[in-house]
Amino acid sequence: MSNIIVNINGECTDGASAKISVFDRGFLYGDSVYEVTQTIDQTPFLLEDHLVRLQNSAQKIGLTIPLSMIDLKKQMARALVKLNVKQAYIRVIITRGEGEIGLDPALAGTGNYVIITKELPDYPQTWYREGVSVIVANTLRNTKESVDPNVKSGNYLNNVLAYAEAKKLGAFDAIMLNHQGFVTECTTSNLWIVKDGVLFTPPLESGLLEGITRKHLLTLCQTHNLPLSVVPISEDELRAADEIFLTSTTKRCVPITKLDAAPIGSGKPGPVTLQISKLYDDFVDSLFTRERAEWAQVLKSLKT
Amino acid sequence: MSNIIVNINGECTDGASAKISVFDRGFLYGDSVYEVTQTIDQTPFLLEDHLVRLQNSAQKIGLTIPLSMIDLKKQMARALVKLNVKQAYIRVIITRGEGEIGLDPALAGTGNYVIITKELPDYPQTWYREGVSVIVANTLRNTKESVDPNVKSGNYLNNVLAYAEAKKLGAFDAIMLNHQGFVTECTTSNLWIVKDGVLFTPPLESGLLEGITRKHLLTLCQTHNLPLSVVPISEDELRAADEIFLTSTTKRCVPITKLDAAPIGSGKPGPVTLQISKLYDDFVDSLFTRERAEWAQVLKSLKT
Repeated sequence: MSNIIVNINGECTDGASAKISVFDRGFLYGDSVYEVTQTIDQTPFLLEDHLVRLQNSAQKIGLTIPLSMIDLKKQMARALVKLNVKQAYIRVIITRGEGEIGLDPALAGTGNYVIITKELPDYPQTWYREGVSVIVANTLRNTKESVDPNVKSGNYLNNVLAYAEAKKLGAFDAIMLNHQGFVTECTTSNLWIVKDGVLFTPPLESGLLEGITRKHLLTLCQTHNLPLSVVPISEDELRAADEIFLTSTTKRCVPITKLDAAPIGSGKPGPVTLQISKLYDDFVDSLFTRERAEWAQVLKSLKT
Repeated sequence: MSNIIVNINGECTDGASAKISVFDRGFLYGDSVYEVTQTIDQTPFLLEDHLVRLQNSAQKIGLTIPLSMIDLKKQMARALVKLNVKQAYIRVIITRGEGEIGLDPALAGTGNYVIITKELPDYPQTWYREGVSVIVANTLRNTKESVDPNVKSGNYLNNVLAYAEAKKLGAFDAIMLNHQGFVTECTTSNLWIVKDGVLFTPPLESGLLEGITRKHLLTLCQTHNLPLSVVPISEDELRAADEIFLTSTTKRCVPITKLDAAPIGSGKPGPVTLQISKLYDDFVDSLFTRERAEWAQVLKSLKT
């Protein structure tokens, strides 16, 4: 718990002191929304995208965020300044607040916000050089009609159970199918396959979170005229892929070279995966100057 | 927050001081299981049943309960003795504990336990005399293949969303259907219908929590040779019922006399509902002497 700063409703503490009421609905029901990003050279990465998605998640479950996005950024900045590391993990959690115990959302008072910041080590280079091994989980992804996977909420047991299956088999992660047998996503990332030079990723209708890396990659494919198809992907199509990779904000593009212990394609990161990965890295690099300038404004506002 | 005692890992505090780490997986992911019961004349009601179900829920998601059931009872007793009210609400929450942030259950150390006790007022007599009004929610119940409704877990957003629909329409509660269109349960209770003198309740396969009141009622129906059928119930069958009622540990049998604003049967609590309700009250009364004696042993053990 060292090198952690948590900002709870404006109070910054270390990890050991960071506590929330047991009456908080995030604790009682998972009645919360969240986002995760990181800093690069002390600047939060793709922050605007994450804050837009946070608001979308909240809106979809009728949860009121108790502060403006400008104030939320300031509170993130306060934690990050105290933490003072080059590369930080940032998790922003907004809960519906606390009150009398009961399902009724109206029982809660004002929402609570919790910003967890901590030092983030680099991920192992072997993930990118050799690729990772995943399984197809028996646990199916929640449906849009019960708890929409496109709401990033504190109801994450579904993914915990799928991840536990992967862990048991020594795999890096698990791919989750929907109730129709189609691919949705991994437990914390989106999924892509390559077949005969064409990129495929499932549509939101398959039941998945609209990843921010996914969104930018879709645009990049258009810009660079890369053959792409956003269509439901069956388990058979997944297994017959030439390449598979996953995408997430902190992991970016990670090649998947083994599926249920069988090699995918050549068993090595494929050419399209590497091309996409490079395009994405260049794209986010190109955003950095603007992001740093915007963040400098937030830091400046702390002093006034 | 007055008249509340919370026991967190053996430390009893008032409601305002009752806090848990923001790194607790119950808070981060709803990675927890729980049970709710109440005391009657300072004796926990159907405690053994609830503790068996708690262990079943934990086992189903691979969560280790960090203390024995004997010790858990002692810790409940410590909170209840401090609370010292005639009729108390009791919520026992067991989480997978805290540790590094990540889906992997192995990242957690020992689990945490939280026992919330507070004074429980009597429910309004009108619920029982006149019946309550419910709706059929648009939110569908989680599936057994994603997050099994027969695990009483901290992933309760599904039910919160259904309840919010009911609240919006001024109803008492919401009935949730499964993805095949069959009735499952209300947001915190099981559901029963009566048609032509026969009782019907959905099987566990429809996707619902195995209620403790439900379990005892099934036995009582057999003992008293009441016509009963445990079969999937369609929405049409629900709407055409002569009587509907819900059951839960703290609410017991509550007649439902309106469904989506339309009267059910006569629009008044029906004869079978009242008969069942009486049978159940008599049954639990008959258990009380034994439950009180067993609880006296727990209280006695606190002093040694």
